[in-house]
Amino acid sequence: MTSARPEAAATRGGAIAENGEHRLTTGPVAGSSKVYLEVPGAPHLKVPERRVHLSNGEHLDLYDTSGPYTEGTAEAPAPSIDVRAGLPRTRDAWTRPAPVDGASTQLAWARAGIVTDEMRYVAAREGVDVQLVLDEVARGRAVIPANHRHPESEPMIIGKAFGVKINANIGNSAVTSSIEEEVEKMVWAARWGADTLMDLSTGKDIHETREWIMRNSPIPVGTVPMYQALEKVKGDPAALTWEVYRDTVIEQAEQGVDYMTVHAGVLLRYVPLTARRVTGIVSRGGSIMAAWCLAHHQESFLYRHFRELCEIFREYDITFSLGDGLRPGSIADANDAAQFAELRTLGELTKIAKSYGVQVMIEGPGHVPMHKIVENVRLEEELCEEAPFYTLGPLATDIAPAYDHITSAIGAAIIAQAGTAMLCYVTPKEHLGLPNRDDVKTGVITYRIAAHSADLAKGHPRAQLRDDALSRARFEFRWHDQFALSLDPDTAREFHDETLPAEPAKTAHFCSMCGPKFCSMRISADVREYAEKNGLDTVEAIEAGMAEKSAEFADAGGRVYLPVTTA
Amino acid sequence: MTSARPEAAATRGGAIAENGEHRLTTGPVAGSSKVYLEVPGAPHLKVPERRVHLSNGEHLDLYDTSGPYTEGTAEAPAPSIDVRAGLPRTRDAWTRPAPVDGASTQLAWARAGIVTDEMRYVAAREGVDVQLVLDEVARGRAVIPANHRHPESEPMIIGKAFGVKINANIGNSAVTSSIEEEVEKMVWAARWGADTLMDLSTGKDIHETREWIMRNSPIPVGTVPMYQALEKVKGDPAALTWEVYRDTVIEQAEQGVDYMTVHAGVLLRYVPLTARRVTGIVSRGGSIMAAWCLAHHQESFLYRHFRELCEIFREYDITFSLGDGLRPGSIADANDAAQFAELRTLGELTKIAKSYGVQVMIEGPGHVPMHKIVENVRLEEELCEEAPFYTLGPLATDIAPAYDHITSAIGAAIIAQAGTAMLCYVTPKEHLGLPNRDDVKTGVITYRIAAHSADLAKGHPRAQLRDDALSRARFEFRWHDQFALSLDPDTAREFHDETLPAEPAKTAHFCSMCGPKFCSMRISADVREYAEKNGLDTVEAIEAGMAEKSAEFADAGGRVYLPVTTA
Repeated sequence: MTSARPEAAATRGGAIAENGEHRLTTGPVAGSSKVYLEVPGAPHLKVPERRVHLSNGEHLDLYDTSGPYTEGTAEAPAPSIDVRAGLPRTRDAWTRPAPVDGASTQLAWARAGIVTDEMRYVAAREGVDVQLVLDEVARGRAVIPANHRHPESEPMIIGKAFGVKINANIGNSAVTSSIEEEVEKMVWAARWGADTLMDLSTGKDIHETREWIMRNSPIPVGTVPMYQALEKVKGDPAALTWEVYRDTVIEQAEQGVDYMTVHAGVLLRYVPLTARRVTGIVSRGGSIMAAWCLAHHQESFLYRHFRELCEIFREYDITFSLGDGLRPGSIADANDAAQFAELRTLGELTKIAKSYGVQVMIEGPGHVPMHKIVENVRLEEELCEEAPFYTLGPLATDIAPAYDHITSAIGAAIIAQAGTAMLCYVTPKEHLGLPNRDDVKTGVITYRIAAHSADLAKGHPRAQLRDDALSRARFEFRWHDQFALSLDPDTAREFHDETLPAEPAKTAHFCSMCGPKFCSMRISADVREYAEKNGLDTVEAIEAGMAEKSAEFADAGGRVYLPVTTA
Repeated sequence: MTSARPEAAATRGGAIAENGEHRLTTGPVAGSSKVYLEVPGAPHLKVPERRVHLSNGEHLDLYDTSGPYTEGTAEAPAPSIDVRAGLPRTRDAWTRPAPVDGASTQLAWARAGIVTDEMRYVAAREGVDVQLVLDEVARGRAVIPANHRHPESEPMIIGKAFGVKINANIGNSAVTSSIEEEVEKMVWAARWGADTLMDLSTGKDIHETREWIMRNSPIPVGTVPMYQALEKVKGDPAALTWEVYRDTVIEQAEQGVDYMTVHAGVLLRYVPLTARRVTGIVSRGGSIMAAWCLAHHQESFLYRHFRELCEIFREYDITFSLGDGLRPGSIADANDAAQFAELRTLGELTKIAKSYGVQVMIEGPGHVPMHKIVENVRLEEELCEEAPFYTLGPLATDIAPAYDHITSAIGAAIIAQAGTAMLCYVTPKEHLGLPNRDDVKTGVITYRIAAHSADLAKGHPRAQLRDDALSRARFEFRWHDQFALSLDPDTAREFHDETLPAEPAKTAHFCSMCGPKFCSMRISADVREYAEKNGLDTVEAIEAGMAEKSAEFADAGGRVYLPVTTA
């Protein structure tokens, strides 16, 4: 029962390497190593997986978002990382098909029946047939956010037919933070399972911060171009113009931003619908556009120039994330007229974007009580042709600031089960302050829980393998394996060691909750042993009518508990 | 916008008073004070509430579980607490009706149409008509766990027609902990919102520990008598006898235990049904009884002597919590034959208990993926005559040890929405170690989130008042009020102060997430101001067909944003 493999050090325990001037977290997650899956017929595609090594000689390979940063070993972590040079521009060497009807996008190619390297890559990554990827992308029910100018990215797919994804937000701000911290935040978020990253920086050096992140990010990066555009007009919404906004979009497109949040659904006539709300307009982009519309007595320039945006997006293959600028900011405002009016407009814009061959996601709430969650998915699918839904939580109650990762994980799990394709994380600092390093990790792990719970509920073919492997390890008191299979091996081990730090406790057949005498797992094992020793007929003799069941057990080796097989 | 009331100190900031030899946490929760509601026609009944004082001169009264410990002020907390003397024996002075058919229980009295003081008390506490309480108790769909020998308790009701309740587990163990710590844990858990407490102590001094807890607990206390019975036979399940168990039950009944978990549904013939499970039997009580059954080749003595237990319980008015000894311990084992076979037997036992006039709850899982949760409630209601369901989580996935308060809060919120009456909390240490003080608080707050989310989803008449009050405070930048209305005011304030500690920031019209320029709440307020300044016709003029809406706005005072009214 003891482990034969070398023990990987915990992340916080020392696998922090200095690279150039910047301290990045590198080296494998405890108990695992990075492996690359070869794609049959496409040897240039190397799909990353995290291999968890178990003490019984078996292993489990997991979906991995962490990029090259987790290569190497705990002793010699990721030797090739150089943040000044950026990650290898891997996708530059891949084949890019010719434009179709002016669009160089995964959507246009999928519609034309052209299988791209990105499609092959994500199919292997998800463990599905490439035809499923092609079909889902072609009908707009899945997107592969992959700007041609972000060749460092490892392609991934967002859609209800695939594993539920999560997004982490980072960003500097006028109040605190530095560029170096932002890059490490990205590496840190990806390490724990963020599938995409939104850079919501609003302060100075916004262009340079983003450049560093793009060149070092293995995961797709999204932005809200409005934030930078507003910087350019010194923070006065009324001073915004289509030209300033468009130039900002192009600037970011050139840097390689993979998807952009555009609040083009906030129409002038919807603003009064927010009048009776408890919390008005809580989206920054939404409130900026509402202010602009009222100040100019004009319809939103984002709405009026939407087709021009499509023409830009289709050149780079930027994916629209149509923003919900009128999302509810409180339980009281959930599913109201303003929210659903905007959603209807987003449906209209979805059709326009797709007519240009541009990929589209739809952003969703926010704050929604549990009984009103499913309606959001139903309506989004009806109005927006099942474009991937990308929701912020939602928070199932307003009364727990400091715990909004939890209030929102409840809503996130439910909305993902109902069909939401990607969940935007919420950290414990939501509504209160800026997330620090621990908050980012807590947010990511919490959202991996929500996403995985939904994958289980949706019957995702791979999801339960990990639950089963961990539960078997738990039942067999393979503590090291239980830690290694956890979403957060370091904290699981740390919590265990708080009560029972000694190494023998890692293989002990009890844990600290009940102590050695009362452990139910232990007693349960004793029950099995007892039955084995006495033969199944001991049980048979007591109970009549068990003959059929008994035969089944006898077939299985004559033991009450079957031998455990791991995934 | 500044507060006129004195600022209550944060709990961790100094409101820890020393009483006798024991340090108990006393004084009000930050931003609130204890008040007592008078019950019309029953002036001897004083129902506790927590009054949250708002800076706009309004207040909100909340359900309060904390007992006399939160009386007084931050400066002079709860002066009358003396842990050596115990709490006042308030219920000794209440009227106790004569037995009905040999049963001195709330169920027997309700069936006879007798309204007890306990029923009046819980009706006032829940804000409902006493007739609803009488009806629900009479049909066995709600219970009031109140042993006559626990007169210190503040009665509460558990049933799907009322607010969802939560239970916190505490207990010493062979490995660590002391009696003094256990009493403080009870006070601490009740402070943050535990409705009931289970004392799961298994070590030495088990009787004395419980006596201290009982005499000082304002909330009902439950136990698993099997744990102490097993102590008496030196931890050998095979040595257990009905007599040892019965004497233990009587010993605990005399001390005032309000409800007891009895694993009487683990029948000999169900044990082989766990053979193919990934995690066997994970309930301690369940595994003990399974071991006993196999060792003796006999049916469970709990099952065989169940009617004798009923005769004891009806004398004290102890409520059965029929244990789910075969609950699933992993996603793989959820809703399996063993689990549901036992549930069927619990239904049979429910009918027997009720025939003796004894109140009954049914314990539920455990580990269940989201799509299998609702079936648990449906079947429990069908088989057990809608006796209140009392579940442990369930955890929606197995893969996140160290975060199982979150994995289980997802399941708990869903199962409570479906009709579960009480949720047993799970702390971050579940599966790993013993919860410390912070873990207990985290578990309680997390479960208050799950319970409240379910109350909202079920349309509980009072629930949304708190969400609305907090959201209004948030929108109006009343930071102190936002903290005070939170489930955990101390942590909310602490998180805010990490980024913006200065006192002016508490009234600033922005927060640290976006900084002063980009705050959507701020811009949203500016939109309102703009509209106010220009009159509603500015908006009207732009959009045709808004006449009807406009009239509505004009009626409301001609402003885009209505004046905010608080609960």
